[in-house]
Amino acid sequence: MAFTPTPRVLQLQQRLMAFMEEHIYPNETRHLQEAETLGPWAVLPVVEELKPKAKAVGLWNLFLPESEHGPGLSNLEYAPLCEIMGRSLLAPEVFNCSAPDTGNMEVLARYGTPEQQARWLKPLLAGEIRSCFAMTEPKVASSDATNIESLIQRDGGDYVINGHKWYTTGATDPRCQIAIFMGKSDPDNADRHRQQSMILVPMDSPGIEVKRSLPVFGFYGMPDRAAEVTFTNVRVPAANMLLGEGRGFEIAQGRLGPGRIHHCMRLIGLAERTLEKMCRRSLDRVAFGQPVATQGVTLERIAQARILIEQARLLTLNAAERMDMVGNKEAKTEIAMIKVAVPNMACQVVDWAIQVHGGGGTSNDFGLTHAYAMARLLRLADGPDEVHRNQIGKLELRKYR
Amino acid sequence: MAFTPTPRVLQLQQRLMAFMEEHIYPNETRHLQEAETLGPWAVLPVVEELKPKAKAVGLWNLFLPESEHGPGLSNLEYAPLCEIMGRSLLAPEVFNCSAPDTGNMEVLARYGTPEQQARWLKPLLAGEIRSCFAMTEPKVASSDATNIESLIQRDGGDYVINGHKWYTTGATDPRCQIAIFMGKSDPDNADRHRQQSMILVPMDSPGIEVKRSLPVFGFYGMPDRAAEVTFTNVRVPAANMLLGEGRGFEIAQGRLGPGRIHHCMRLIGLAERTLEKMCRRSLDRVAFGQPVATQGVTLERIAQARILIEQARLLTLNAAERMDMVGNKEAKTEIAMIKVAVPNMACQVVDWAIQVHGGGGTSNDFGLTHAYAMARLLRLADGPDEVHRNQIGKLELRKYR
Amino acid sequence: MAFTPTPRVLQLQQRLMAFMEEHIYPNETRHLQEAETLGPWAVLPVVEELKPKAKAVGLWNLFLPESEHGPGLSNLEYAPLCEIMGRSLLAPEVFNCSAPDTGNMEVLARYGTPEQQARWLKPLLAGEIRSCFAMTEPKVASSDATNIESLIQRDGGDYVINGHKWYTTGATDPRCQIAIFMGKSDPDNADRHRQQSMILVPMDSPGIEVKRSLPVFGFYGMPDRAAEVTFTNVRVPAANMLLGEGRGFEIAQGRLGPGRIHHCMRLIGLAERTLEKMCRRSLDRVAFGQPVATQGVTLERIAQARILIEQARLLTLNAAERMDMVGNKEAKTEIAMIKVAVPNMACQVVDWAIQVHGGGGTSNDFGLTHAYAMARLLRLADGPDEVHRNQIGKLELRKYR
Amino acid sequence: MAFTPTPRVLQLQQRLMAFMEEHIYPNETRHLQEAETLGPWAVLPVVEELKPKAKAVGLWNLFLPESEHGPGLSNLEYAPLCEIMGRSLLAPEVFNCSAPDTGNMEVLARYGTPEQQARWLKPLLAGEIRSCFAMTEPKVASSDATNIESLIQRDGGDYVINGHKWYTTGATDPRCQIAIFMGKSDPDNADRHRQQSMILVPMDSPGIEVKRSLPVFGFYGMPDRAAEVTFTNVRVPAANMLLGEGRGFEIAQGRLGPGRIHHCMRLIGLAERTLEKMCRRSLDRVAFGQPVATQGVTLERIAQARILIEQARLLTLNAAERMDMVGNKEAKTEIAMIKVAVPNMACQVVDWAIQVHGGGGTSNDFGLTHAYAMARLLRLADGPDEVHRNQIGKLELRKYR
Repeated sequence: MAFTPTPRVLQLQQRLMAFMEEHIYPNETRHLQEAETLGPWAVLPVVEELKPKAKAVGLWNLFLPESEHGPGLSNLEYAPLCEIMGRSLLAPEVFNCSAPDTGNMEVLARYGTPEQQARWLKPLLAGEIRSCFAMTEPKVASSDATNIESLIQRDGGDYVINGHKWYTTGATDPRCQIAIFMGKSDPDNADRHRQQSMILVPMDSPGIEVKRSLPVFGFYGMPDRAAEVTFTNVRVPAANMLLGEGRGFEIAQGRLGPGRIHHCMRLIGLAERTLEKMCRRSLDRVAFGQPVATQGVTLERIAQARILIEQARLLTLNAAERMDMVGNKEAKTEIAMIKVAVPNMACQVVDWAIQVHGGGGTSNDFGLTHAYAMARLLRLADGPDEVHRNQIGKLELRKYR
Repeated sequence: MAFTPTPRVLQLQQRLMAFMEEHIYPNETRHLQEAETLGPWAVLPVVEELKPKAKAVGLWNLFLPESEHGPGLSNLEYAPLCEIMGRSLLAPEVFNCSAPDTGNMEVLARYGTPEQQARWLKPLLAGEIRSCFAMTEPKVASSDATNIESLIQRDGGDYVINGHKWYTTGATDPRCQIAIFMGKSDPDNADRHRQQSMILVPMDSPGIEVKRSLPVFGFYGMPDRAAEVTFTNVRVPAANMLLGEGRGFEIAQGRLGPGRIHHCMRLIGLAERTLEKMCRRSLDRVAFGQPVATQGVTLERIAQARILIEQARLLTLNAAERMDMVGNKEAKTEIAMIKVAVPNMACQVVDWAIQVHGGGGTSNDFGLTHAYAMARLLRLADGPDEVHRNQIGKLELRKYR
Repeated sequence: MAFTPTPRVLQLQQRLMAFMEEHIYPNETRHLQEAETLGPWAVLPVVEELKPKAKAVGLWNLFLPESEHGPGLSNLEYAPLCEIMGRSLLAPEVFNCSAPDTGNMEVLARYGTPEQQARWLKPLLAGEIRSCFAMTEPKVASSDATNIESLIQRDGGDYVINGHKWYTTGATDPRCQIAIFMGKSDPDNADRHRQQSMILVPMDSPGIEVKRSLPVFGFYGMPDRAAEVTFTNVRVPAANMLLGEGRGFEIAQGRLGPGRIHHCMRLIGLAERTLEKMCRRSLDRVAFGQPVATQGVTLERIAQARILIEQARLLTLNAAERMDMVGNKEAKTEIAMIKVAVPNMACQVVDWAIQVHGGGGTSNDFGLTHAYAMARLLRLADGPDEVHRNQIGKLELRKYR
Repeated sequence: MAFTPTPRVLQLQQRLMAFMEEHIYPNETRHLQEAETLGPWAVLPVVEELKPKAKAVGLWNLFLPESEHGPGLSNLEYAPLCEIMGRSLLAPEVFNCSAPDTGNMEVLARYGTPEQQARWLKPLLAGEIRSCFAMTEPKVASSDATNIESLIQRDGGDYVINGHKWYTTGATDPRCQIAIFMGKSDPDNADRHRQQSMILVPMDSPGIEVKRSLPVFGFYGMPDRAAEVTFTNVRVPAANMLLGEGRGFEIAQGRLGPGRIHHCMRLIGLAERTLEKMCRRSLDRVAFGQPVATQGVTLERIAQARILIEQARLLTLNAAERMDMVGNKEAKTEIAMIKVAVPNMACQVVDWAIQVHGGGGTSNDFGLTHAYAMARLLRLADGPDEVHRNQIGKLELRKYR
């Protein structure tokens, strides 16, 4: 059957699901409470407690493809596993499979020097430290990378870094020790895609200020530990440059593919979980003499949610397979399509589920509001829908020019 | 011109807009900050500071129709004023025109005994105390009033009250001194709409526990000070009964009309404000060489937002006029229609505006997330869309049976 | 009450409705049959039979505002009458209130010389002849009037006309004796809105060829008698020029306002009629043990249709009133808004009604397919939705530049 | 790659595409003209001319799975071929792969006796005769098979058939020689799914009257040769019974699966073709100084169309594979999902394309109106969307009961 998991993946699925049942779902309320009471600048004990358990049973770093450091699952193999993790906002970090670390680890695994890998990749893979990705800037529409205003300037054996970033996910985490920073090293280069570089910036460098945590709707830290960060004359050794000056855009292209597909895989799991809640609630709840499930538009929406999820999953699996076969760059249309389709699907499914839950659906008692915040943010993270649709439209028109 | 404001209303509009410019808009950031840092159990200084200013210039209690206590504006006259207040989440309480107090004051003005009015209505009108409305219950679909499980039982000269409520807006406010409580005084009455009563319950009565503040998405207290409250053997004098035993459903019907129309009026103002933000942002923001305003789908959405807002306003004004002419009960179809149309419109407009603001649109920097939370909650408060559509559909079919 | 009809209008409404019941509805099946069997090049007997009856009772030319030739109803007065006519595709012509004659008569009444009026307006008002409006061209996007390629060239005491037109509604009608033709008389004028003129072209002029009837979906002649027409060296006296050379764009602006609002008024009637059919059908039809009306999504859609219709009507009445008060040009935003909102609403309502009728809904037995064709065409006639949204969006942005 | 065609299928794809380029596309205008001028009761010469060519090159009966009579393609293998045929409304019959014959041939191949096969299946496979399927009835909601009122009564060695049918596709075709008729042979059977039988009824039997052709919108015969047929005391030999009395529902279940999936496959081809037209037109057409393709919402819609088509195709291929693996009955959820998703997608894509074509999009010059009629009909044929969503919703809820 198309996209049928291999036996190895099937076995991992079973183990993941068992772990979810045993350790994740029972801890979700605690997770919400810790996130709310401890806030976005804290390490959440529940996460630290569960990580060793996941590591112990080998459910660890499953995201990392074709590498000596990970299990070597392909995107298509990882997809159904990532979906399972996505069913809970607690799960991904527990399995060391959460953004932005996964993307950062992949960059280090693919482009890092042995020294860079030893210094940063190793502890990241071990779950000992965390990382952040400093790309988006508050002053410009950053989905257009050529708008970026931050600077990475050579000065002797160092680079001097200046910039104002936000949506630097992970920066408020006390364990965050390293940033991958995108800026312009050659802002006047005629080739607008060679102006940018990416460089490794230790978070304890003088001149870095994590100014504030950024909420998603009212939520700080969870589902997204976004932050606003300023870099003022931050000095790092030239050896921290990734891949070479002027190759930042190239790395970004390579990095964003997996990041996007992981987000989509997780959202499919989140949507499935939400549909389950919607079904259960509508069966339990009685209004005007009948279960809500059998009334009015609810049954119709349940059906439509099922259709939307199936379509989104197939599109995502198809993109994963295509990435495996032709590479992230060649698969750009497929990636752009899921980036549009999946978060929109998830927003719709969560919205319907909220409606079935009545007023309580807007509280945090059912996990629907965090799910909505996550899905809604992903209509914007890594570029708004409109930017991706623009790209897809242009690629489509190219066939006929 | 249809729905043209009278000179008196025009003059109030001017004064309101001037007050908004001078006192409300400049204090919105402070309001957000106080709401966030002081939390839902606190009185916000910014509100208390501005209330006397509003009162001093006579922009006070404008909501109260046909009454010796207020300016005697009709619904149609109040509508454009309420819309202006709705432009800011800070404004309504400053003008003593915020839910649930307005609805509670109207109940007291209409159905209260002179003693009840002296004791509770007077300080509410003065803005000295606040009130809450305890109707919705967590265990049942409360949009069907016959589901309500709380009890109001006669015991000598008292009533004894037991019930578990949530979405009891206002209960966490330290100034909240009185609840209007809905429960069943005669649960076995064959007429299912005579089972309920409403009664006044002082909030300092033994047996009341305000268990927690309920967030809307992640927001506590603002835009909605919702709470979960338990009432355990709470004892109040029989004189606290409103209108008479078994008349709770009747009062609810009367109360919900104005509440619903006020919500809709405010949402129209909120949508207008949001469209303004969307326009300004899309003019300022450049991506891929052009302002966002001139690109892709944005201009189309701005136009569609304008159309949706105009339609929603006209529908609301029409409902207001109809309520003035035939009363809240006869205008039930019109009220149900705005209850569906307006919050959905507002959700859509805010969603588009978020998209134009990029990732930052999901933060709280632009006021869009609070606006979304408000609009989204109102697709559920006072009954979900689906319940109102059901009612409208049945009234429509009745024409042909 | 806002938009309350005056006594005179109320009385006309009563008479119109009575006429509809007595003469229009009972003849609708006959009308469909004649339209289908006689085809688009024929005069339909049913129409000719009913016209004298309508004329006899004074339900005639009600569309004509502020004129010695008509009843002098304002747009706001005409709106509820036009809505009633719109309930049936047979009605408008019977009352001499059908497109494009109404727009053409208005042009002649407003801009025609006494000679032009005597020669063409008089028989049009009498319903003795019909007219067509030759503006749209197949080769260019004609919603942008500056694209128009037809030529009107002065040659001595004549103008020589060349052009290829389509959607020249009415041209296949044997009674059609006059065209209002739009072309460029000064294609090089630096002011792109002074290049065009409108001129009267008798349909029996040598060089005119009505090449074919254009269907809407599969329907020829009804609901729209569109045609493709070529004009080859057609010669008309200079006295046939309307208003003056270079004023074609100005006339078009003036003409399109009433045309658009009449279309919208009629569509509201059509949507009301369709909703009635949807309600009746869903009450009559039983599936899986229950009437369709009470199942699934049908009741929800009936409610939503009611809401959409009410909003569209209010928006249209508001535009009508605004046109009456400030003129067609100043009311351009209001007209553009209804041009977008109303046909989309009507398409949606008809689509839902088709769905309730099952497969038969796509046949012509229930009048739904003709209704859809009409509504769908009007999302394009006089400019597609997108062009109008563009204009509305730009006007909105102008507030903030 | 998932759903990758096998070499045999790839080779058939190439040959089919070549045939389309050489014979189908160049004849489409002629096909439309013949359909319009000759009408629904005629054989269209263009079809008869092309059939021998298709047969000669072996592009014939490709639809027929697992059978001695056909090429033995699985559903998954046939899908990409059927999609190619679906690109043109002319193609399916040319390749002897058009509804309802395909479904009828499959019934005969699967359930027919050797005698029935010799008499009817053989000439159908040869393309010498055509057939119709008489199930839907005008008086009842036929998506609920238990509503069917037609009767099949045993009388000696015969059955006597009475019923009023419509949407009996194919019955107006002069080559139509056989009907598969569904009726109740045991209307009082307690098992409501054992009341129905299917029987073979020669179209020249006395008592059959093909009363009229039914249009889809205004189109007769093309895209669908639907008809209304009455059966009055039609007598057929008992040997014409299919599979056995009381097994009509069972056959219907088996028949509808392939029918539905074929419709969906074709619609995907139709949507692809339409998107191609939309892209070409929007590149060619200039308005307000720029190609429509780069303006406003068009690019966005092209992208969205691409996403919708990809999702619909993947869902359909997945259903095809599932049918191949577990059978039509087990794959009922998958079939129901495509039955909802695909026609809705196709309607949306065609609607957008019409909009890009301006007024002309509603004429028949671009093939968009026939495409819309086809797609719109398929939201109703074999049961309206709502019935399928109901079924999907109930299956989803069953997981949690």
